[in-house]
Amino acid sequence: MKNKSTLLAFILATAASGTTSVWADDKPFSIAIHGGAGTITKAKLTPEQQQSYRDKLTEAVNAGYKVLEKGGDSLVAIQAAINVMENSPLFNAGVGAVYTYDGAHEMDASIMDGKTMNAGAVSGVKHIKNPIKLADAVMNNSPHVMLSGAGAEEFALTQGFTLVPANHFDTESRYKQLQDAKVKLRKAEFELKAKSPDYQASNTAPQIDYLDLDYKFGTVGAVALDKKGNLAAGTSTGGMTAKRFGRIGDSPVIGAGTYAENGVCAVSATGHGEYFIRYHVAGDICARVKYQHKSIIQAADEVINQRLITAGGTGGVIAIDQRGNIATPFNTEGMYRATRKNGEPADVMIWRDM
Amino acid sequence: MKNKSTLLAFILATAASGTTSVWADDKPFSIAIHGGAGTITKAKLTPEQQQSYRDKLTEAVNAGYKVLEKGGDSLVAIQAAINVMENSPLFNAGVGAVYTYDGAHEMDASIMDGKTMNAGAVSGVKHIKNPIKLADAVMNNSPHVMLSGAGAEEFALTQGFTLVPANHFDTESRYKQLQDAKVKLRKAEFELKAKSPDYQASNTAPQIDYLDLDYKFGTVGAVALDKKGNLAAGTSTGGMTAKRFGRIGDSPVIGAGTYAENGVCAVSATGHGEYFIRYHVAGDICARVKYQHKSIIQAADEVINQRLITAGGTGGVIAIDQRGNIATPFNTEGMYRATRKNGEPADVMIWRDM
Repeated sequence: MKNKSTLLAFILATAASGTTSVWADDKPFSIAIHGGAGTITKAKLTPEQQQSYRDKLTEAVNAGYKVLEKGGDSLVAIQAAINVMENSPLFNAGVGAVYTYDGAHEMDASIMDGKTMNAGAVSGVKHIKNPIKLADAVMNNSPHVMLSGAGAEEFALTQGFTLVPANHFDTESRYKQLQDAKVKLRKAEFELKAKSPDYQASNTAPQIDYLDLDYKFGTVGAVALDKKGNLAAGTSTGGMTAKRFGRIGDSPVIGAGTYAENGVCAVSATGHGEYFIRYHVAGDICARVKYQHKSIIQAADEVINQRLITAGGTGGVIAIDQRGNIATPFNTEGMYRATRKNGEPADVMIWRDM
Repeated sequence: MKNKSTLLAFILATAASGTTSVWADDKPFSIAIHGGAGTITKAKLTPEQQQSYRDKLTEAVNAGYKVLEKGGDSLVAIQAAINVMENSPLFNAGVGAVYTYDGAHEMDASIMDGKTMNAGAVSGVKHIKNPIKLADAVMNNSPHVMLSGAGAEEFALTQGFTLVPANHFDTESRYKQLQDAKVKLRKAEFELKAKSPDYQASNTAPQIDYLDLDYKFGTVGAVALDKKGNLAAGTSTGGMTAKRFGRIGDSPVIGAGTYAENGVCAVSATGHGEYFIRYHVAGDICARVKYQHKSIIQAADEVINQRLITAGGTGGVIAIDQRGNIATPFNTEGMYRATRKNGEPADVMIWRDM
């Protein structure tokens, strides 16, 4: 059903035939995915790199779309899409996760089921190939919502997960990114220390904030509406390059980086996580839809392009409503993303216009 | 200013004198605190125990109130109140924190400033005497919002915090509670294992859910409005008795256990944390005030006594609006709480009617 006139013709034909038996197959369904937002200038990506991203985004969105097309669950669809991105070194999740200050990978993920409003999240896991799967296991097989660190991995073992070695996630480009970040951080720290003998590495925001936005981005996520009318959202990330002190970003925080509620909307976020937590971005977008009856386009746009910009927070979201409408606002130069719905081909984008 | 007629007389007198110079001192200010909600039946508490709780709640609310009365910041006031409860063995925060399954104390806390919408949170700290102070340091002196585990304690050291030994938090009653919980858990686990050889300790919710509600409660928190019109909220907890797998509850989750936004409301929650995360309770109460223009009383009541009850979630909140109105709804038998405002004496309550 690509457009209104086709839909109208179908309704008339169905009414004329006196049957509604095939109607169930015409429920709207759609999926949106993101692979991170940031200062992705057109000059920065070679045509080959662009193509790699577009190909992988297409593969990911189609993996989820196929589940939906067959009548599968939105929860299954979003995981299929996210797994493709976690398994690709192009994105900051799973293989290709950024490095912490200490040279490790500490990954976060969360998932939410709009039907039951059940949710699962993990933070700081180091040996889980697909953190989104572990978040799903927390949701389904534990009385808890959020598990962290070594405890989360102990839980994973009880669920039959195989732990992978930390070097499974290594990529040379991310390692180089860590070295670059540390050089910049150290330089800033020594400069500050020279000015003030009391200076502590931890107690100034600027030395992280001056870092290029790209050190913070690359999170992946997906939202979907299935034919049964169930919404779901999921997010997976390696967090922020050179993060320290067991920092937890917005990705595993329900209401900040991920939210889903049937009848309202589903959201997955990517960006400067601290702002997304403080402004509980995913929850706020859904609240504007639910309580102010705003469209998903308007609600998501207001939060990303007004509220967050005023606050100084950069990033974007993918959001979907109960009718399968999709919003993908971002206030950065680009956001890797793809959408697909109702028998239409996939739409794959990096910048505002392409 | 105890009542409207006094206020009116004051306004008239001020107007007659042709000056408004003392008016700044008559801005509304108020504070509310909680020390946990649960199955606190009247039969369970001896008159002496009741008195101990009432005395400590009075001390805590007055500690915060005095800050506000002198024109101090709401952020300072809530910490003064929370410190009193963290330092008392009566509550599940600081000294008297519950034990994890492995016999440790893993504490969570968060704080939010309604003026700047800045926030700080720590999870799983083991050697911090007053976790709310560390959350405050994260908010003020780091670029992050949420730090966890050993990393959070490393950050604490850079901030001049002194780590205390784990046994600082020990209390015999909490230790007994852990032993009781483990006996019940083990019994349930062996029963389930006898029925199914594939059973894993982690993969059934009931064995935790059947636990008496009291194993889950005792979190402390405070919300305040100062004379400058700034709202603040904070929450501190030892979490859930016998918790495993690095479980993180709602207390350190901004938007779930804690939220504050000037002009809207400030909320601190206590209860079965998983439900408070899934329904992002603190954020939802504020969203109803902000977008539906509901009173703080109605908004908080709807979430705690309708939405959460329908979902099966137990607990309560303290909430305060921009005019200093306070709501303290709970859907359990009792909630330790106290409020004080505008020159009035403190109001200290455990049950619905006393």
